[in-house]
Amino acid sequence: MTGLILSKAANIYLKLSEAHGLDASTWHAFAQVEALRELSIEKRQQITWMLAEPNLATDAIAMLPNLKWLQSTWAGIDRLLGAGSPKHFTLTNIKGLFAPLMSEYALSHILAHERQLLTHHDAFTRRTWHEHTTGVIRGKTVMLLGMGSIGGGMAHIFKALGLHVIGIMHTPRPVPGVDEVGALKDLAILLPRADYVINVLPNTPDTQDIFDAAFFAQMPTHALFMNVGRGQSVIEADLAEALQTGVIAAAVLDVYRNEPLPIDHVFWDTPHLTLTSHTAAPSFPEEVFEIFKDNLERFSTGQALCHVVDFNKGY
Amino acid sequence: MTGLILSKAANIYLKLSEAHGLDASTWHAFAQVEALRELSIEKRQQITWMLAEPNLATDAIAMLPNLKWLQSTWAGIDRLLGAGSPKHFTLTNIKGLFAPLMSEYALSHILAHERQLLTHHDAFTRRTWHEHTTGVIRGKTVMLLGMGSIGGGMAHIFKALGLHVIGIMHTPRPVPGVDEVGALKDLAILLPRADYVINVLPNTPDTQDIFDAAFFAQMPTHALFMNVGRGQSVIEADLAEALQTGVIAAAVLDVYRNEPLPIDHVFWDTPHLTLTSHTAAPSFPEEVFEIFKDNLERFSTGQALCHVVDFNKGY
Repeated sequence: MTGLILSKAANIYLKLSEAHGLDASTWHAFAQVEALRELSIEKRQQITWMLAEPNLATDAIAMLPNLKWLQSTWAGIDRLLGAGSPKHFTLTNIKGLFAPLMSEYALSHILAHERQLLTHHDAFTRRTWHEHTTGVIRGKTVMLLGMGSIGGGMAHIFKALGLHVIGIMHTPRPVPGVDEVGALKDLAILLPRADYVINVLPNTPDTQDIFDAAFFAQMPTHALFMNVGRGQSVIEADLAEALQTGVIAAAVLDVYRNEPLPIDHVFWDTPHLTLTSHTAAPSFPEEVFEIFKDNLERFSTGQALCHVVDFNKGY
Repeated sequence: MTGLILSKAANIYLKLSEAHGLDASTWHAFAQVEALRELSIEKRQQITWMLAEPNLATDAIAMLPNLKWLQSTWAGIDRLLGAGSPKHFTLTNIKGLFAPLMSEYALSHILAHERQLLTHHDAFTRRTWHEHTTGVIRGKTVMLLGMGSIGGGMAHIFKALGLHVIGIMHTPRPVPGVDEVGALKDLAILLPRADYVINVLPNTPDTQDIFDAAFFAQMPTHALFMNVGRGQSVIEADLAEALQTGVIAAAVLDVYRNEPLPIDHVFWDTPHLTLTSHTAAPSFPEEVFEIFKDNLERFSTGQALCHVVDFNKGY
């Protein structure tokens, strides 16, 4: 009985394991799935757990008949949840690490929008003393779709900066530091009051395609839409049109239906749109390792694992 | 006995006064100092108070022999403090309005630096899927030079975002929400630990030329320097050289020794330098008016004014 690390950061995880006194002498550690194919069938059959990026794990699972536990190094595990995907193991992901990173991402882009940082940058590049008007975020209203650890953490920081926070969740309940809560069905009432709309919802059947032309039409024309949740929630052609026609003022996207963004995608030429490359909240191996180490101890001693994903719910 | 509004926003101040029931029928309100010259000497002699931008007030004061009170619409009043400037009146400025704006400015640029927003923007402009490494501000150390209302407000927000805050002040005393305090003489010990150094000190004889080559040499090479205080505190050639030679990693400036920045200034070609045009914390007339209205009531009834500037201290 042994384990497999399948990650771009495999060497870092090995070093962290040794530094923490774990016996990694029987483990396999690869940065690419091709190396796994070269292992003998006997050795693959001995592998009962895997620490892996989901995009590498998808190809590896079929080669690991005795896999009991997969620890994802990412929060987003939707590519492991498809109807045809094997589900003969316990899947755990990472939680609680991303609220600060996601909050800093959201803040940086909302502030850049209000402060017109790029306009200012362009003016100074042209040696122009640009006395532009500056906006403020204090006193504005932010709507957060998703009130898990990430949305809750964002709410806390936005409150500290003097914003009014509306939280949208599956089953509304009072949340400390959130001024108003509602469900998706309440959007028609709540959306017209939002200056910034930020999606942090996971990818589930309920959240597919929810950001469409009708949604954007309910936002104020001066408002900004941001998606740091999952790309499958946005009808991308509708968002491009909303930005082209002034239905909303700006958008910031970190996730897309297909990544990397296809070279002929409409977003490359869409105005008032800031694109980033799924880098809002990178997993730092040092932080992932803490979760992995704790779960490995639990796995080895037969205890319940932390951060188990429900294959039916999708999170 | 009457008053004068001398401001680019003169019409807005008049409307606000009327909306608040003040009798402005005998006041003068001009957007430019030239209009004041056309007033008769008798009318100028009747003017006992003035609400004005300091850059306009400097030329007007000599024409107002009976001026008793000048309410500045700016926080920065150093151009009214020179050795030869008239001081036969009480000078009040505005305080307490700028902490949120200054905090948002500082946050926006520190986050843009860590998130490499401009690099990302440039990559996407070239249609490149740019998977850059993202930095975080949480856990970093920020040094604030100046612990008045602006520095104190910034400290509060940086603490909420998980930074370690060092406050530098004239006479160190414990400040709620500030992890460490020190004086300028303690910089040799404290500066090497600062990831971000932000100057919000007013322009006084003590703060002239304090940011020089020796100062930058004590900062870590990965650190960022930001000046939102006064331009006279920075030896600009030393800062340019520190950025050119990698003594420090980056700088953000909103104020300069001469504004607008002269066309042949070294800063236009200095790497790792973000320039903005003294727009970090604009005075919003609606907020300035609240201070003016309160002080006008005090002035009319012989009470002590708020936010009086000490001509000797310079703040």
